[in-house]
Amino acid sequence: MSSRLSVAVIGAGYWGPNLARNFRASADWNLAAICDLDLERAQRVADSVGGVPITPSLDDVLADPAIDAIAIATPARTHHPIALAALDAGKHVMVEKPLADTRERGVEMVERAGENGLVLMADHTYCYTPAVLKIRELIEDGALGEILFVDSVRINLGLIQPDVDVFWDLAPHDLSIMDFILPGGLDVTSVSAHGSDPLRTGKACIGYLAMPLTSGGIAHVHVNWLSPTKIRQMVIGGTRRTLVWDDLNPQQRVSVYDRGVDLALQSKATADTRAANISYRLGDTWAPALPEREALANVAGEFAAAIRDARPARTSGESGLRVLSVLEAASTSLGADGAPHHVASHIKEVQEA
Amino acid sequence: MSSRLSVAVIGAGYWGPNLARNFRASADWNLAAICDLDLERAQRVADSVGGVPITPSLDDVLADPAIDAIAIATPARTHHPIALAALDAGKHVMVEKPLADTRERGVEMVERAGENGLVLMADHTYCYTPAVLKIRELIEDGALGEILFVDSVRINLGLIQPDVDVFWDLAPHDLSIMDFILPGGLDVTSVSAHGSDPLRTGKACIGYLAMPLTSGGIAHVHVNWLSPTKIRQMVIGGTRRTLVWDDLNPQQRVSVYDRGVDLALQSKATADTRAANISYRLGDTWAPALPEREALANVAGEFAAAIRDARPARTSGESGLRVLSVLEAASTSLGADGAPHHVASHIKEVQEA
Amino acid sequence: MSSRLSVAVIGAGYWGPNLARNFRASADWNLAAICDLDLERAQRVADSVGGVPITPSLDDVLADPAIDAIAIATPARTHHPIALAALDAGKHVMVEKPLADTRERGVEMVERAGENGLVLMADHTYCYTPAVLKIRELIEDGALGEILFVDSVRINLGLIQPDVDVFWDLAPHDLSIMDFILPGGLDVTSVSAHGSDPLRTGKACIGYLAMPLTSGGIAHVHVNWLSPTKIRQMVIGGTRRTLVWDDLNPQQRVSVYDRGVDLALQSKATADTRAANISYRLGDTWAPALPEREALANVAGEFAAAIRDARPARTSGESGLRVLSVLEAASTSLGADGAPHHVASHIKEVQEA
Amino acid sequence: MSSRLSVAVIGAGYWGPNLARNFRASADWNLAAICDLDLERAQRVADSVGGVPITPSLDDVLADPAIDAIAIATPARTHHPIALAALDAGKHVMVEKPLADTRERGVEMVERAGENGLVLMADHTYCYTPAVLKIRELIEDGALGEILFVDSVRINLGLIQPDVDVFWDLAPHDLSIMDFILPGGLDVTSVSAHGSDPLRTGKACIGYLAMPLTSGGIAHVHVNWLSPTKIRQMVIGGTRRTLVWDDLNPQQRVSVYDRGVDLALQSKATADTRAANISYRLGDTWAPALPEREALANVAGEFAAAIRDARPARTSGESGLRVLSVLEAASTSLGADGAPHHVASHIKEVQEA
Repeated sequence: MSSRLSVAVIGAGYWGPNLARNFRASADWNLAAICDLDLERAQRVADSVGGVPITPSLDDVLADPAIDAIAIATPARTHHPIALAALDAGKHVMVEKPLADTRERGVEMVERAGENGLVLMADHTYCYTPAVLKIRELIEDGALGEILFVDSVRINLGLIQPDVDVFWDLAPHDLSIMDFILPGGLDVTSVSAHGSDPLRTGKACIGYLAMPLTSGGIAHVHVNWLSPTKIRQMVIGGTRRTLVWDDLNPQQRVSVYDRGVDLALQSKATADTRAANISYRLGDTWAPALPEREALANVAGEFAAAIRDARPARTSGESGLRVLSVLEAASTSLGADGAPHHVASHIKEVQEA
Repeated sequence: MSSRLSVAVIGAGYWGPNLARNFRASADWNLAAICDLDLERAQRVADSVGGVPITPSLDDVLADPAIDAIAIATPARTHHPIALAALDAGKHVMVEKPLADTRERGVEMVERAGENGLVLMADHTYCYTPAVLKIRELIEDGALGEILFVDSVRINLGLIQPDVDVFWDLAPHDLSIMDFILPGGLDVTSVSAHGSDPLRTGKACIGYLAMPLTSGGIAHVHVNWLSPTKIRQMVIGGTRRTLVWDDLNPQQRVSVYDRGVDLALQSKATADTRAANISYRLGDTWAPALPEREALANVAGEFAAAIRDARPARTSGESGLRVLSVLEAASTSLGADGAPHHVASHIKEVQEA
Repeated sequence: MSSRLSVAVIGAGYWGPNLARNFRASADWNLAAICDLDLERAQRVADSVGGVPITPSLDDVLADPAIDAIAIATPARTHHPIALAALDAGKHVMVEKPLADTRERGVEMVERAGENGLVLMADHTYCYTPAVLKIRELIEDGALGEILFVDSVRINLGLIQPDVDVFWDLAPHDLSIMDFILPGGLDVTSVSAHGSDPLRTGKACIGYLAMPLTSGGIAHVHVNWLSPTKIRQMVIGGTRRTLVWDDLNPQQRVSVYDRGVDLALQSKATADTRAANISYRLGDTWAPALPEREALANVAGEFAAAIRDARPARTSGESGLRVLSVLEAASTSLGADGAPHHVASHIKEVQEA
Repeated sequence: MSSRLSVAVIGAGYWGPNLARNFRASADWNLAAICDLDLERAQRVADSVGGVPITPSLDDVLADPAIDAIAIATPARTHHPIALAALDAGKHVMVEKPLADTRERGVEMVERAGENGLVLMADHTYCYTPAVLKIRELIEDGALGEILFVDSVRINLGLIQPDVDVFWDLAPHDLSIMDFILPGGLDVTSVSAHGSDPLRTGKACIGYLAMPLTSGGIAHVHVNWLSPTKIRQMVIGGTRRTLVWDDLNPQQRVSVYDRGVDLALQSKATADTRAANISYRLGDTWAPALPEREALANVAGEFAAAIRDARPARTSGESGLRVLSVLEAASTSLGADGAPHHVASHIKEVQEA
């Protein structure tokens, strides 16, 4: 047991029980406490994992020298104060998405973690699913070539949230995945956000994000709370191959198509001669076998490994910040009828502005 | 035979043979000629329908008093001169999409037809498929309630066209269908177009159109030549029900979901109290049986009926013009990095501007 | 708490934890004990539901007057002795499928329960899924008309079992569902079983059951451990409509097709004139909304209700026996190269034979 | 033109026009005549291919020395007299499935062709689809290993035929494909046929065929005229890989699963030790690209090649005979309540019997 790290889960609402269960089952972790002001639901979570101490006091958790880290699963607006308090108490921190409710607060969290030499990890759970891990690996290995476009659709009949619009509710998934799999992370120059609130609920229920990639090409996200059919599909087009991830097809989640448009590149080619040099490949399709493993088990393992190796987590605070940057720019674009808005790409940018 | 109308097909390329075959099979029409400068391919088309006169001369066709109408299936840039000449010769005209290569020329065609009291019909073939006809009927009957959003995806590995981008190649389908099924036609205030040409072919191969509907809600189109998977799906959300049209699922093309978000509307409701009044319906799904009938057979029938009844075709020149208006505004938006651009809605607007 | 019934779960292997969790969560039940010779796994199950007494002794459970019922989730060959002991101790009994390892033993269990006035319930879990409950209701209400055929496919890459063949492993699901939904239960005159063991594992890994229905028509089952794709589909054809249950399509598990062949029945019709009176209906498809509810929660509720109302459970011991009768006849047919074998339909039949 | 062979199509009903169109388009053939007693429909077929001589007289066709071959697309009961007359007139013969209406007549046709040194080809069109050609190639190359099972489902709402039952109408497709792709052809020892005529039309509308393969393993066919959903799927399990052919999924018709059950074979293994040596592979899936080519074009090419090379066609008269043998044995089994019936495997067998 001496080699295990100790963690407390803060927040026993929707996501907390999943964190608790996975930390409990992990060989890397000792689940030290469940912390929630609502002691009754804290107890239910504690019971569900076979008994763990509960407490309503974050201060007590942070004062406990035996606790190495906390995992925050509270509402977004509370991420910032809880994380800063924990970082100041010398605890490593994992935060449920989104990292914070504003980019500025996210910057402060990232900087504080850096100053204190602690791990700040974004719990971008989807990134640790077998499918996304495989996609990242394939792109890294060059199987797709250079990335030309990423198109993500995440639509379903969804709960209209009281505090956030559909962009802040759903798009963090798509954006964090793109940040994880793209070679240079989610590196976009601007974002245009188109939203609609046709039921006049007071916030967008349908949303589209168009984002030119700095490397060329385009990323696009469609999120929607009003769709009766559920679609979770990402198409990633590359110069060599194109990949389709259909998360609702358990029998073939990831398909790699050796099919596409080839361009015979010539140094002196003009647009006209380029068109003449286009050819089409209609090759095989290949669907890699994926291991069966719960994403959150991988998350728990990565959090421990980052702490032990004193390195940033694969989904670091910075990655959480890149997602926040896009979301914040999207909100601005949304307020300007979809006019493209610059995305802050450097950590200092917002403060200097 | 005396009651049949006579038609000549102009252009024997990709689409002409389909027109010829359907006019030939129609009880409403006498197929009088195939006209193409390339006589060899005109002959092939004529042979394929069992023998019809061919000619390289448009003038001869237009001079023939026995011919009532022409159907134009030539490249887009030639639609305008051919149509005007035909209208001036007293012929009714059907034009393959897009109506013309610029909105201004389209306006001139519509006006000339009006002045001459002739039918100008846009061959928006998809509108005459059993699926789209049924969708129009359902919306007209109020089965969906008020329309909240329309999301259309039309992606496939496609031929990169030498002269047009992906918007002008594919989006006319989606736009003309929306114009056909929406109660007030395609009535949008502005369009934001986001495109990408990651292979540097000289024109957009990936495109997105976001269009706020004048009636509230949003319409969106995704067209893509670089997708290895083929998707042709439209989701039409209404206050009462939502409809999904999956054109690649022959066993269930149209599904109507009695499922959605309900809002208890109150006269004094604020955004906050609105949120509290949201409820969810998880009702049945219903898929109407669709007759098996080739769309072009319906097109031929509608062309004849419009001429006989001296009324605009269901896909009139004006509808072709509305499609052109969006495409032209989209091109402008595209040139402005996706900034939303006003869509000309009145026929006079472009000329006055 | 006084109105709750008390139950002990016997067996903490694969299925026991699911039973424990559902009895624990049920308002009808008090989960009194987990009984397993392997105390360690009994404890794991007890912990997973928040703490319940464990014991290795079935005798102690049966001697406890506070316990009203037991749920047996042990290997099939132990069902008979455990169930008889429990029935003799005055406990109601629920048994995992199959009811017993031979029909004769099943008969003894059913008779003993009858003699002692106790409930003997077969845990045919699938029958309590929202889909199957809805199918039963539709058939009962006459929505399908008279049943013409039932075709069930249940194939997947499956664990080759050490003790049973693919018929005894998988077909109980299909047979128990048929028994549940067909108006007269699973009333077949004979069964032909075709099996294959191409890997020479010592027992059939691929199996087909053909069963003429006493009411006319045919029931057929395909079970397979060697299929790389997973299919769980049942087609139920009726004179009025046909229903397809695709259990792997969560978005549309049950589809009702108003489509089929109609026969204009005439009293004096011969085979020839019949053929002339055939017509086809190509009507709509309808997919009823299904509630989200775990089947085992319904199972627990039904077990309690049957005890309280002193009535047979909807999946009674007799229904378990009908399933056993077919399985036993299938094994005989299998040994005779698939020659059809009579299915014992009366409870006394086997004993008189 | 001198190198082209000349063919006449006999029968201008359902299938004849397809044959005519493909012979017309083939570089190997000169379409010399359409022969049908109903001259009007013969003319329609002739017109549809741009003009070909028609005749009501088979004798005239057979007497024409310029004609090398005939393709028979008439009702099954007429195949035998027409084919024999043609073979006696020195013409090569292609026959639509089934080869004949009885096995005995089929034997006579095969023998006559052999005696006269002429090609007798079965028009098993499905065998020449890109999917089936690829499957045959994969099996030949050993990609699947030894074949363990073949399961074919071909169900749809179908026209109830006036003269044949569902076995004779649909199963020839499945049987001829199996004959084409299996290394030793369709080599089965016996067949059990289970049918049902729940609408009392006078013949089976639902059918199942179970056929133990001589090489071990099993082949099974499910054909059904009463299913509201259309399924055309074949699963071919091998010791190395398993293949699924889903003919209604144009985007991925053929999938090869590197997934299955492995058995560590040992010379002294008993059934018990075998079970202990089972392991599971969960490998990748692979879908080969398939060329787009009409099957009948390949059929026309193969017929010409067989004549020129003086060799049996890939779907020879013998293959047609193997299909007939199974169908005839199936009819006998059907009359015996599904008892397995011996399948005649040698050409002489029926005559000696």
